[in-house]
Formats: sequence, C-alpha cells, structure tokens
Amino acid sequence: MARPKPGAGRAARIARRMEDIRPFHVMELLARARELEAQGRSIVHMEIGEPDFPTPEPVLRAGRRALEKGELFYTAATGLPQLREKIAGYYRSRYGVEVPASRVLVTTGSSGALLLACAALLNPGDEVLLADPGYPANRHFVRVVEGVPRSVPVDAASGYQLAPDHLERQWGPRTAAALVASPSNPTGTIVTTERLSAMAEIARVKGGTLIVDEIYHGLVYEGQCTTALALADDVFAINSFSKYFNMTGWRLGWMVAPDPYVRELDKLMQNLFLSAPTPAQFAALAAFEPETLAILDTRAREFKARRDYLVPELRKLGFDIPVMPQGAFYVYAGCGKLTKDSFAFARDLLERAGVAVTPGVDFGANAPERHVRFAYTSAIERLQEGVARIAEFLKA
Amino acid sequence: MARPKPGAGRAARIARRMEDIRPFHVMELLARARELEAQGRSIVHMEIGEPDFPTPEPVLRAGRRALEKGELFYTAATGLPQLREKIAGYYRSRYGVEVPASRVLVTTGSSGALLLACAALLNPGDEVLLADPGYPANRHFVRVVEGVPRSVPVDAASGYQLAPDHLERQWGPRTAAALVASPSNPTGTIVTTERLSAMAEIARVKGGTLIVDEIYHGLVYEGQCTTALALADDVFAINSFSKYFNMTGWRLGWMVAPDPYVRELDKLMQNLFLSAPTPAQFAALAAFEPETLAILDTRAREFKARRDYLVPELRKLGFDIPVMPQGAFYVYAGCGKLTKDSFAFARDLLERAGVAVTPGVDFGANAPERHVRFAYTSAIERLQEGVARIAEFLKA
Repeated sequence: MARPKPGAGRAARIARRMEDIRPFHVMELLARARELEAQGRSIVHMEIGEPDFPTPEPVLRAGRRALEKGELFYTAATGLPQLREKIAGYYRSRYGVEVPASRVLVTTGSSGALLLACAALLNPGDEVLLADPGYPANRHFVRVVEGVPRSVPVDAASGYQLAPDHLERQWGPRTAAALVASPSNPTGTIVTTERLSAMAEIARVKGGTLIVDEIYHGLVYEGQCTTALALADDVFAINSFSKYFNMTGWRLGWMVAPDPYVRELDKLMQNLFLSAPTPAQFAALAAFEPETLAILDTRAREFKARRDYLVPELRKLGFDIPVMPQGAFYVYAGCGKLTKDSFAFARDLLERAGVAVTPGVDFGANAPERHVRFAYTSAIERLQEGVARIAEFLKA
Repeated sequence: MARPKPGAGRAARIARRMEDIRPFHVMELLARARELEAQGRSIVHMEIGEPDFPTPEPVLRAGRRALEKGELFYTAATGLPQLREKIAGYYRSRYGVEVPASRVLVTTGSSGALLLACAALLNPGDEVLLADPGYPANRHFVRVVEGVPRSVPVDAASGYQLAPDHLERQWGPRTAAALVASPSNPTGTIVTTERLSAMAEIARVKGGTLIVDEIYHGLVYEGQCTTALALADDVFAINSFSKYFNMTGWRLGWMVAPDPYVRELDKLMQNLFLSAPTPAQFAALAAFEPETLAILDTRAREFKARRDYLVPELRKLGFDIPVMPQGAFYVYAGCGKLTKDSFAFARDLLERAGVAVTPGVDFGANAPERHVRFAYTSAIERLQEGVARIAEFLKA
C-alpha cells in the first residue's frame, strides 16, 4: 500500500519543553563502552547507576509464584493493599515511625511518584528548588507539567545538599516546593535530621511543600539518615524498590503523601498509570522478609567496603572529594586539577584506559566541567583494576 | 518522636489541573461490588475493562525464565532491542507493513505512550480533538501537560468515531493533534481505512498530528481494522500488550513514532521512565510466537461469541445499540428508554440485581446520563445470568 510521506518541507511539531529536556549524556558513553566491549576491549564500568546485584532470591521466588498462577491483572491504582500494609510495617520496624497504609501509594518506580507529586502540586510557572548537582530527571518532571525547576548551586559547605539557609534565601513568591534527595545522586551525601526538620518547617511556613527523595535509604554507611516522615506529616516522601532492594528493572516504588492529597493522587494514578506493574508488586511482597533484608544488608556492607576502598584511592589520584559520601553508591569527584573539561576527560578515559565514568554535565550546571561521578556498582576487584588504569592514564 | 502537624487552617496546595482530572466513577461501583461479594452476594461483572483470561502460558513461561536468571536490570529506555524487532516483525506478518524497529518505542503500557506523545507534541494551550464518548484518561494526559482536550460529540452517524468532517470543522488555530481510538473504548466501533487515511491527511495539511490508539487491535470481529501505519509515516500509533495479548497487569505497550520524534522521545523516556518493566519485556518476547497467537485468536473468537450473544439480548431488553460494535469487548448502550439517570440505574442494578456495569459519566459529557457500558469480559454463562437478572430488574 502506498504511504504518503510527510511533506519534505514540513518540520515536525515538537513542544517547546523538549528544548529543556536533556538526554543522559552517559548513555552515549555507555553505548560506546558496549561497542568497545563488542570489539573485545575490557571496560571497567563505573558509570552505571544501578546495583550490580541480581534481585534477591526470595523476591524472585515470590515473583515466580505469581507467574505460576498467571493472574496478573491490574491491581488497585494505589497498589495491592497487602503491599501498602507491608511498606507501612517497614516504616514501623526500620524507623519506629507510624505511617498509615492509606497514605502509602505504590508507584511505577520512584519516577512515577515524582511525576505524580509534580502533577498534583505545581501550577504552570510554579517553581521547585533543587540542589545542583542533582539527579537530572528531577528538574524534567517539574518541567513536563510546566513548572519551573530552580537549581540551587550547592557545595562542600552544605555537604552538597540543600540547607535551611538556601530555602530561606531562595524561596520566592512563585516557589511551590523544594526537593531534597538524601542520600543524594550524584554526591552520596545525606542531610542531617535537624536540617531536614528545619526545611520541612520552612516549606510549611512559606505555604509550600517539601518533597524528599529517599530512594537510596538503606544504603547509608555512616551518620543517621532519618525518614522525613519521622519529622513531619505534610511532606511527600518518595522511595523505591530499585536501589537498596535491587529491583531496578521491575519499576516499582512508592510515595507516602500527606493525607489531603491521597484522594487527588489516587485519581491521577487511575488515569495516568492504571496500576504499578503487578508482577513487581507480588514479588515485592517478599522484599521485607527477614531473609531478604539479611541479603540486602550484606550487600549494603559490600557497598560500604567498596566506598571505603575507592574514596581514598581517588583522592590519592588527585580527585577532590571534600565531603566523604555517606550513602548511595556514588562519588562525585572534583577533577579540576586533572582536566578543564570533564566530558573530554570521561571520553578519553573510556577510549584510552577502558574506564567508564559519568561526566558532570549529567548533573546540572554547577561546575560540571570540573566533576565526574564514579559509581561503585562493580565488584571491588574491578574497582581496583579501574583505579590502576586511571593511574596509568594520568601518568601518560 | 513528636511530629508537628500542618496548621489546621492551612489548606493543602493542590494544582489547578486537578479540578479537571476526574476519577473513574466505576471504581466506586467496583468497590461496592466487592463489598457485596464479601457479604456473600453473587455479582455479575460487566464493568471491568480488562480481559478475564490469564496471561497466555508461553508468555508466562518466558517471564519465569527471566526470573530464574534474576538479571532484571534496566533495559535501554526505548526497550529491549529484540522486543522492538519482534514488534516490527508483527507489523510485517499481521499487516504487511514495514515499520523500522528504530521507530518502535517500548512503553510502560499504552498509558506511558500517551503521556510521551502529549509531552512531546503539546505546548500549553494547544488543543487535542477527542471523540466523546471516549476513554477518559486520554483527555487527562492532554491536561497534565497543560494542553486543552477538546471533546467532539460523536454519535451513530459516524459510528461513534471521529470522522474527517469533524476534523475539518473543529480544527482551530490552537489545535495540535487529533486522537482517534479504533476500536474504541467504550463503543467498540472502528474507523474505516478511508476515513483514517483522510484524517491523517487533514492533520498533515493543518500542520498537526494524528495520534491513533490501536490498543484493541486483534480484537476485531468484522470489518477491516487497518493500522494507521499502513497509511502514513507521520502518525503516532499506540498499542499495548494489555488487551489482545492479555497482559494488563504487566504494564507494557508500545508506540510507533514518526522518525523526527524518535530522539526526542528517547530523551523523555530516559528521564520520565528509565525503562519499561523488564520482566514484562522479557515475557513479551514470547507474545508473537505462533503458539501464543493461536491461544489469543481462540480467545478473540470467544469474545466475538460473547458479543454476538450479548448485543441482541440487550436490544431485546430495551437498550439502544444503533451501531453493532465491531471490536474491543464493550457495548455502549443507550438506556434512555429505561432511565433518565444512568448513574442511579447502574447503582440500582448493582444493589438490587447484582449486576455491575459502568455508567456513561466515565466516558465524557455527551449524554452520559442516557448510556451505560457493558464489558463482555466474563464467560458467556455469566453474561446469560446477567441478562436474566437485568430482565427481572426491569420488570420489577
């Protein structure tokens, strides 16, 4: 059948917001790394933002049981009731915090939760304060609903985190919310309980909302990382089964929302998602079993060992790491003494040394050319190999 | 730990768009139906918009194999390359249409695809033409990115579908796109090839885009239901593994986008979704196997048999069904001769006769009070029981 082609002269109609949506530059590097591997080159992967561990066996087992039955229909839009109960129970056992299951909304990854929070909170033109460097998708969730992401440059002085002082100074008449991620991607740093509490209070006084991204909770190696829900009932707390629970590809997360938003969010979830993936929800019922948590905590200790090895080695190589990352699996390293262009540096490191890292440009506009992110999502032997290769590379 | 409560006087800050987002009213009825069932009442379900068949065994088997391995990491944002290839192959074998795999984007259900299309196409204030009655979430995807859904009332004259004439008359200076769903939810009707082609041409001439929702393809019982991709390269064609493939809860769909949008959509997918669910993607690799398609086509014949039973029976009972639904698993029935208030009618039918149907209000503003939707997603014996109960109810 003959198919008319679009007129050669007609440009595609693309929404203006797309100019503000940036691709993850690391994807290009990752694609190039895969290409080099296909050619037989050995690559040390320190660019990948997901745990290298497979999904824990008890979770897989629960998933397989659901697949045996085959009844993988839509769940309620807000999630399986028994999963919402288990998540509430986890707040009780892990943090000693009472969170009613009715406020727990099961989402398609924390990505789903971030979209829902932005859609429910932001009018066009409303601003959201975000730390720079930070996870780049956060500002895009704001942008996609026509909000305005307002990046706040953060540095070693505040542990590369938003601080109460930032909120006091930067909160303007159009600010609707601030988003805090603790532990942070890319810096691995956490916000203290006092500061988190103060920021929730500032948002409240300003008539806005604090959104707290807690997706790296469980991967904290020193210091106290309180859930914001221990401090306030009027914050949006977002979490995920991806990182600590090693369930990235399953696309499952959750949000604990303030009571007055629950019905609104349910409406949005019905319309935008129908439900979170059912196999993932059944599998996640086993995520809080003692057997699973024991596996996960062993893995968390392994991440800590990797961090304890990697950070001093990177410092010896000349990278600036003024604040020890306390969680997640990232080191955001200053490379200003080694290069003026972190993107070219990352490219050369891949091509010449076979080490893949993520250039700073993926995390914002706050001196990205002087930073790269290392992810310790490879076994310690591979990290050692990576460090050796970087040492060679820097000598050359 | 003491938790400060939000000030009693402070209202939650809720985005204005939320006033325009409607819940699915059927959810209330469904909840009530479950309540009655818990009390021991027998309920005939004719309200549920998902196939009653479990996921086909070959698909479950492929899913279980993926779960045996446990390597359920993120895939590429656009989906597993081998799945994109298989989808392209399906267009070749089922429709005789060549679609390059590079234009196939694997999404988190067709819901994910609709959000992506709206985000990539619509500026704030841009209008999208939609048939009323229609699937209610469609207008909410438009609204959430600050577009303006413009409902076009459709009736029996155009088979309850948008027609070229509607587009010609309704396309205004702010219209960016028209969305056609064929077969349609709630009416089950399809658009003819000629009309679909003409609508793609009108959108093109107007400098806009035709979005075609093909999620009920494969469930077509008479007439020809061409994919829009056989007619044009510049349409967005959206499909799903939920309906024909019986994979609702897995949350997997796809979109075939025009070439100039693919990179833009990839960027959005990286940021908004990371990837579609990995277990679902691995499972869906078996969806196009001859063994699976044979199961699905048997089930499609069962749906046809249910339709052929149900429509005449409903007509005998006094429901108006001026156009025979040709696909999906819905009958949108006029109940104007039986009631002035379809919502009260649906409620009474549930309470007094134990039959659950969906009131018209869930599908728009075009005489919803005179319509209800029957879903034939129950076995034919249950449909017979439902018909008998309705007959009794109407006599009372």
